[in-house]
Amino acid sequence: MSVHLQSTKMKTMESLKNRRTIRKYSNEPVRDDLLHELLEIAARASTTGNMQLYSVVITRGEDMKAALAPAHFNQPMVKQAPVVLTVCADFNRFNQWCMLRNATPGYDNFVSFFNAAMDALFFAQTFCVAAEEKGLGICYLGTTTYNPDKIIDILGLPKFVMPLITITLGYPEVIPPQPDRLPVSSFIHREIYKEYTPEDIETYYAYKESLPENHQFIAENNKETLAQVFTDVRYKKADNEHFSKVLLDTLKRQGF
Amino acid sequence: MSVHLQSTKMKTMESLKNRRTIRKYSNEPVRDDLLHELLEIAARASTTGNMQLYSVVITRGEDMKAALAPAHFNQPMVKQAPVVLTVCADFNRFNQWCMLRNATPGYDNFVSFFNAAMDALFFAQTFCVAAEEKGLGICYLGTTTYNPDKIIDILGLPKFVMPLITITLGYPEVIPPQPDRLPVSSFIHREIYKEYTPEDIETYYAYKESLPENHQFIAENNKETLAQVFTDVRYKKADNEHFSKVLLDTLKRQGF
Repeated sequence: MSVHLQSTKMKTMESLKNRRTIRKYSNEPVRDDLLHELLEIAARASTTGNMQLYSVVITRGEDMKAALAPAHFNQPMVKQAPVVLTVCADFNRFNQWCMLRNATPGYDNFVSFFNAAMDALFFAQTFCVAAEEKGLGICYLGTTTYNPDKIIDILGLPKFVMPLITITLGYPEVIPPQPDRLPVSSFIHREIYKEYTPEDIETYYAYKESLPENHQFIAENNKETLAQVFTDVRYKKADNEHFSKVLLDTLKRQGF
Repeated sequence: MSVHLQSTKMKTMESLKNRRTIRKYSNEPVRDDLLHELLEIAARASTTGNMQLYSVVITRGEDMKAALAPAHFNQPMVKQAPVVLTVCADFNRFNQWCMLRNATPGYDNFVSFFNAAMDALFFAQTFCVAAEEKGLGICYLGTTTYNPDKIIDILGLPKFVMPLITITLGYPEVIPPQPDRLPVSSFIHREIYKEYTPEDIETYYAYKESLPENHQFIAENNKETLAQVFTDVRYKKADNEHFSKVLLDTLKRQGF
């Protein structure tokens, strides 16, 4: 029994270790009872005071996927995935309960939004781990916080509901190679945060910078360094400032 | 082989389904090689553009636990747990890399903070799932975003590093009962967000309100309803407004 348990644990660890984002899905449908089971498991994730401050909008219809696609800059996963999930921070349901119970909610503020966001993101990540254990593949779309206003309109989200992240879900058509990660030593600090020296940075980013695909990435974008591809092409200051304004304005519009 | 795999998957699902927060830890130490393995697994979580915008400060020293405890309102887990992890959104390391590579980072804004926060929270949750698979227990401390300024000073966090959530970690001394959760139907919406009717709210909150521990909770706090315990005692408007100001001021202080 003990040996079997050990082997089970090791296999789970392997599944977590071997995971990768899946962007191309097969035609195999995702059964609704499986989706329900995964959502129930996800709801076991930790929450703020057991308030469960999240909602999920499930998109299966072709018309709704087509409506959502432009808000995600037409990334092909939105239309191609059998299921699209928009995970939202949601104080609306809790507020409705309070008002029905002679209680005055005081959650129209930033810390309440952030508590709800943490609930929603822990829920989303637990969902993804469970889905991958079941052989499904997922892709997170960070574009949700770039165009939250458009998504609110498409999905009809009321005040105190804020879309945070979108998950495209399906069975993998192609299993891509696993991307690189920084070494653990690069992101841990013992007792006190130790500021990085230039030598530390050289060490931690050496492997990433050595990869042929990243050399190609620099060449394709006509840049000198990989970092410039991030700062000048992928995540530019002007874009970040624009999307920051949209995100903050939308938080206000949603009541937070 | 297929049967064995199936049985493995079912066991993992059971582990996720049976999880609960652990607030009392045994004396069994958490080995550093195990902690390293869990952190490596957590780094497999999805990220924004593979930037890995997080850091973790590992607290094992009694003096540092004692220093952190007041920032967490002296919740006993901080001093009692063998390991305390402060998970931070971190653009500092990435910025240092950019500057060393002739690239000008443009991440002093809200959307960049939020991207880093999502990276950090997915990382944290994957860490917790892996830790629980290994037989460890965790408790999240949401107090991190209530007193981020104090935690920054104690841990020496530089600009562009923002503490988000704290994890206390150890082997369970006591396994508490599993708390209730709302039914899946309460937090899912199909295609479009369907506003809750009073009847919906009655249905979804009926089980929670029926629990003896919640009746006791109402009585202990001299309230009429469970919702009032939340609005008038646990998560009060005045507190939320105070902590919102601290959180927003601290985000600005950290450069976002």
